[in-house]
Amino acid sequence: MKHYCTCTFCNYTAMTPKITGELLRLLRQTMRNCKYFSEPIQAYIIPSGDAHQSEYIAPCDCRREFICGFNGSAGTAIVTEQHAAMWTDGRYFLQASQQMDNNWTLMKMGLKETPSQEDWLISVLPENSKVGVDPWIIAADQWKNMSKALTSAGHSLVAVQENLIDAVWADRPERPSTQLRTLGLEYTGLSWQDKITTLRAKMTERKITWFVATALDEIAWLFNLRGSDIEYNPVFFAYAIVGLNTIRLFVDLKRLTDPALRDHLQLDSPSKPELSIQTFPYESVYTELQAICTALGPKDKVWICDKASCALTQVIPKAHRTPIPYTPLCLAKAVKNSTEIQGMRMAHIKDAVALCELFAWLEKEIPKGTVTEISAADKAEELRSQQKDFVGLSFPTISSVGPNGAIIHYRPLPETNRTLTMNEVYLIDSGAQYIDGTTDVTRTMHFGTPSAFEKECFTYVLKGHISVSAAVFPNGTKGHLLDSFARAALWESGLDYLHGTGHGVGCFLNVHEGPCGISYKTFADEPLEAGMIVSDEPGYYEDGSFGIRLENVVLVVPAKPKYNYRNRGSLTFDPLTLVPIQVKMMSTELLTQKERDWVNEYHRKCREVVGAELERQGRKEALEWLIRETQPIV
Amino acid sequence: MKHYCTCTFCNYTAMTPKITGELLRLLRQTMRNCKYFSEPIQAYIIPSGDAHQSEYIAPCDCRREFICGFNGSAGTAIVTEQHAAMWTDGRYFLQASQQMDNNWTLMKMGLKETPSQEDWLISVLPENSKVGVDPWIIAADQWKNMSKALTSAGHSLVAVQENLIDAVWADRPERPSTQLRTLGLEYTGLSWQDKITTLRAKMTERKITWFVATALDEIAWLFNLRGSDIEYNPVFFAYAIVGLNTIRLFVDLKRLTDPALRDHLQLDSPSKPELSIQTFPYESVYTELQAICTALGPKDKVWICDKASCALTQVIPKAHRTPIPYTPLCLAKAVKNSTEIQGMRMAHIKDAVALCELFAWLEKEIPKGTVTEISAADKAEELRSQQKDFVGLSFPTISSVGPNGAIIHYRPLPETNRTLTMNEVYLIDSGAQYIDGTTDVTRTMHFGTPSAFEKECFTYVLKGHISVSAAVFPNGTKGHLLDSFARAALWESGLDYLHGTGHGVGCFLNVHEGPCGISYKTFADEPLEAGMIVSDEPGYYEDGSFGIRLENVVLVVPAKPKYNYRNRGSLTFDPLTLVPIQVKMMSTELLTQKERDWVNEYHRKCREVVGAELERQGRKEALEWLIRETQPIV
Repeated sequence: MKHYCTCTFCNYTAMTPKITGELLRLLRQTMRNCKYFSEPIQAYIIPSGDAHQSEYIAPCDCRREFICGFNGSAGTAIVTEQHAAMWTDGRYFLQASQQMDNNWTLMKMGLKETPSQEDWLISVLPENSKVGVDPWIIAADQWKNMSKALTSAGHSLVAVQENLIDAVWADRPERPSTQLRTLGLEYTGLSWQDKITTLRAKMTERKITWFVATALDEIAWLFNLRGSDIEYNPVFFAYAIVGLNTIRLFVDLKRLTDPALRDHLQLDSPSKPELSIQTFPYESVYTELQAICTALGPKDKVWICDKASCALTQVIPKAHRTPIPYTPLCLAKAVKNSTEIQGMRMAHIKDAVALCELFAWLEKEIPKGTVTEISAADKAEELRSQQKDFVGLSFPTISSVGPNGAIIHYRPLPETNRTLTMNEVYLIDSGAQYIDGTTDVTRTMHFGTPSAFEKECFTYVLKGHISVSAAVFPNGTKGHLLDSFARAALWESGLDYLHGTGHGVGCFLNVHEGPCGISYKTFADEPLEAGMIVSDEPGYYEDGSFGIRLENVVLVVPAKPKYNYRNRGSLTFDPLTLVPIQVKMMSTELLTQKERDWVNEYHRKCREVVGAELERQGRKEALEWLIRETQPIV
Repeated sequence: MKHYCTCTFCNYTAMTPKITGELLRLLRQTMRNCKYFSEPIQAYIIPSGDAHQSEYIAPCDCRREFICGFNGSAGTAIVTEQHAAMWTDGRYFLQASQQMDNNWTLMKMGLKETPSQEDWLISVLPENSKVGVDPWIIAADQWKNMSKALTSAGHSLVAVQENLIDAVWADRPERPSTQLRTLGLEYTGLSWQDKITTLRAKMTERKITWFVATALDEIAWLFNLRGSDIEYNPVFFAYAIVGLNTIRLFVDLKRLTDPALRDHLQLDSPSKPELSIQTFPYESVYTELQAICTALGPKDKVWICDKASCALTQVIPKAHRTPIPYTPLCLAKAVKNSTEIQGMRMAHIKDAVALCELFAWLEKEIPKGTVTEISAADKAEELRSQQKDFVGLSFPTISSVGPNGAIIHYRPLPETNRTLTMNEVYLIDSGAQYIDGTTDVTRTMHFGTPSAFEKECFTYVLKGHISVSAAVFPNGTKGHLLDSFARAALWESGLDYLHGTGHGVGCFLNVHEGPCGISYKTFADEPLEAGMIVSDEPGYYEDGSFGIRLENVVLVVPAKPKYNYRNRGSLTFDPLTLVPIQVKMMSTELLTQKERDWVNEYHRKCREVVGAELERQGRKEALEWLIRETQPIV
């Protein structure tokens, strides 16, 4: 899937503009009000994140959406006395232009003529302006860059402690505090105690005395716990501070009453003092970190991610602060162990069963004219929910017909809901959380006769997908070096797509995770290693007409080519997703023999592995569909 | 060609280690001597550049080579009381290990286990150490990074004004001051006055009042002048400072006496006051820039490249300094105008004539056993020098047989000189400066019967070369996104090469220039544009056995694919180099039909264009060779 805003409100937000005149008037009032900051501020930045720099956020944190109406996952709004502008990237140009009213200027990132936020601010602000931002919402590295640019132009970036959006948001929802779930070794492969020990070994190696964990998925992974505070993401609001002999967990303490949970965390009888977890209220992380920092020795160093909040980062005195682009937890979490890999394989087989059923059902139902984007998405969820250990969806299903498919992050709403027909391309990007793994798969299909152009584009996308999936590359290669493989066939015909090719995928965790990925953007992606799991999802989008995307989740595995240059070893990908790719959409004459072989081998594996499970579950129609859809091409 | 040290001394430096014990003792004495710095310094950094951060340097600037013996183009030496270490990259591992004695530790950059210079210093230095460096030799951005890392570990980076290598270098050569050559519109396509006007327009657009030019090729390009201060590079030692109404040129004033030169620069009768060039001695740039900076208005901004020397950069007060990764001259110079493109085409045709002659001659002479690496290189130079407007070589010829070919930056020396035979692979990477353009071409050939493995590797390299050369990609694509195309076929068999795929090429200027290139390293390369010229040179090196590289210089040109996504336009490459690629070395059965078509079309063009020139010049044997070597493959 591609990145999303997962705010539950989005379900009810239409693709019609939000009326923001009055809201902006109120916000500008607070900007002038010295109750919030000692002087009036001339601009206010509203990033899209929460205090954990989560990509997916809880309803109480959807502040950028609240102020401008745009509910995509990525975007930053800036309001000045005269202007209101919102920056987002190519995935969202169409959606943002539909969701914002005339008070807002859409800033299309990635286009040459679009100014950066800094340049724009400098061009519109009166001399010596103050630009405000909530220091809990802005990441330390972003603060630094923005502050530097503004200062060099005679302005200043200031931290406004109380969030100004909250000040004008009358019915802002509460912060969630859902029940926590413990995960045993049969799912995690590694106890939280072992994870702490590995973390401390890394700290000792780098002469680090404290580590501050702020990313919610890292904390969930570390303690082998899951929550549901954020829809689609099995995480919970918390912080953790790990020292060489102590562990502090900051979380709503009401959540820690369940005896099984207390037992899992050994809260009442820790095995060793250094593995004893001290618990604190969620809100006390700031004062507790202050206390730790007051007691630091001259050589003590504190690790914190440079993407952590500016507020928390600045608690650590600069001389003791060691910012890192990726934490050791992020890196450890990305390389799945054999238990996790086995779980991910199982989750993907179950997921494939549900999708084979869905497609068999669609084939039967579409001719009746009764299936819509929404009912197809609901059916997919229903079928997935029948599978063992299903927890929920891993993101809102993108179920899109014809022109809606060209809106890269479309999600069907009652106002936009189209009926599936024999005449239009259908794109479904969906996935689920199972206790043993997380899935994310996109298939593009035609239930009638696709046009020559649709088939041509589909085939280029397929070539790109195969080119990445079958690539052999040296150990230590960064994902961005593979991105162009996914585009070469499209480029050759003058086509392209305006999003990355793949993202890391968590194991019963966030469907997007770092630090690896496959993108033309080269922001510090870490080298690919065996055991990492990423998506491979090139696409093509013809505005107003159709969208195509082909996505598998793939596991990085060792490859054994003929030679082994400098003993570096080689890697390749093994698809975990096992759902047939529609042959009807292919112009097979455009495929090379190697590509045809890849398709046939992939389909053989789908039939063998998923077929066996369909048989076991007695799902005959889906099995027949699978057998028909996996006939070799010649 | 791949990067080189072009110090003339290199010609006489053997591949045997330099004895450095006594030199290091002397250097360590100066490090403790408070005559040079107020306190003893515990480490001294010796980068490889000059005060202009030139890649190619004059003999007087070969300080890193003087101290450690290694004469490759890239490398940094660091000497402490106890240790001496030298960092270089994969191109030079073999060469450096042969040229340095046991006093030195070779630090192999790019290998996981190799520490960075900062980490190494921190690991070996006693607490609170001073690390010295010559501020004219270290670039401002490098100073900043190094200083930050050292400071965070309790050490400090200090500027030692007198160069400590010079202090122990008894017979250091003088700085050259060669005759200057003026270039008319028939070569440049644009007068220096027009270039100044364009530069000022960019300055005005970005609200910049001064621009400091420190790169020698940018200054040569701006004033349409050439020199020969640095071997192989037609540049001269100078600085320039351009204001909105003034032009200051800093150069040895003795060089400005020639009337034609004075006329070219309009030194005695400028057409307009703002196009009047004020000349100053080379050394006075520091004080003159200080004077300019003293008189700056509060809003005045000064552009300087962030790769300029720390010494000059720090003259500009931080509030007025606008560092840029690439100067507007660098960007303007990279996009060749039609006159320059025409010149480059002509230069490459002449160059191909010389190479066809060389290969025809080699074919005849090698069986006699009289041709060596050195005599072949000399013959190539002799044949090139017969061509019109030949000025000199653009870099020292790499002429290498068998195992010497695996030394990526090999240059033949009397001690290493091998005889060309019918049994070993021959690699020649060579190029020339003509008044109308600069060339750089590599061909790998076998004059007997190549082994199956040699052919296999050659064919993978050829596939990579074609994959880049024939790539179609969107306008605005950065070169690093094309690098993996060059490697895919090698990777698939577990092979690779440890250097980038291509560099920018100047027009009768440096054979390496920024800001574009094709490399897995992503350091701020600028997007490719029509008119840019880069090399395409994948390779494969089998240590101790053979080396393969295939290099063409290629021009970025608009492509016209079937579609035009978002009206972005597409680009591809047009080879300027027109020298046959040896079919005998190809395993043609490994080539796809598309690749075979590419080879045949390329050879057709070589035959047509170079054949006509060979005919015109009456060079019959070479013409026969060309016709034979360009027979279509089937």
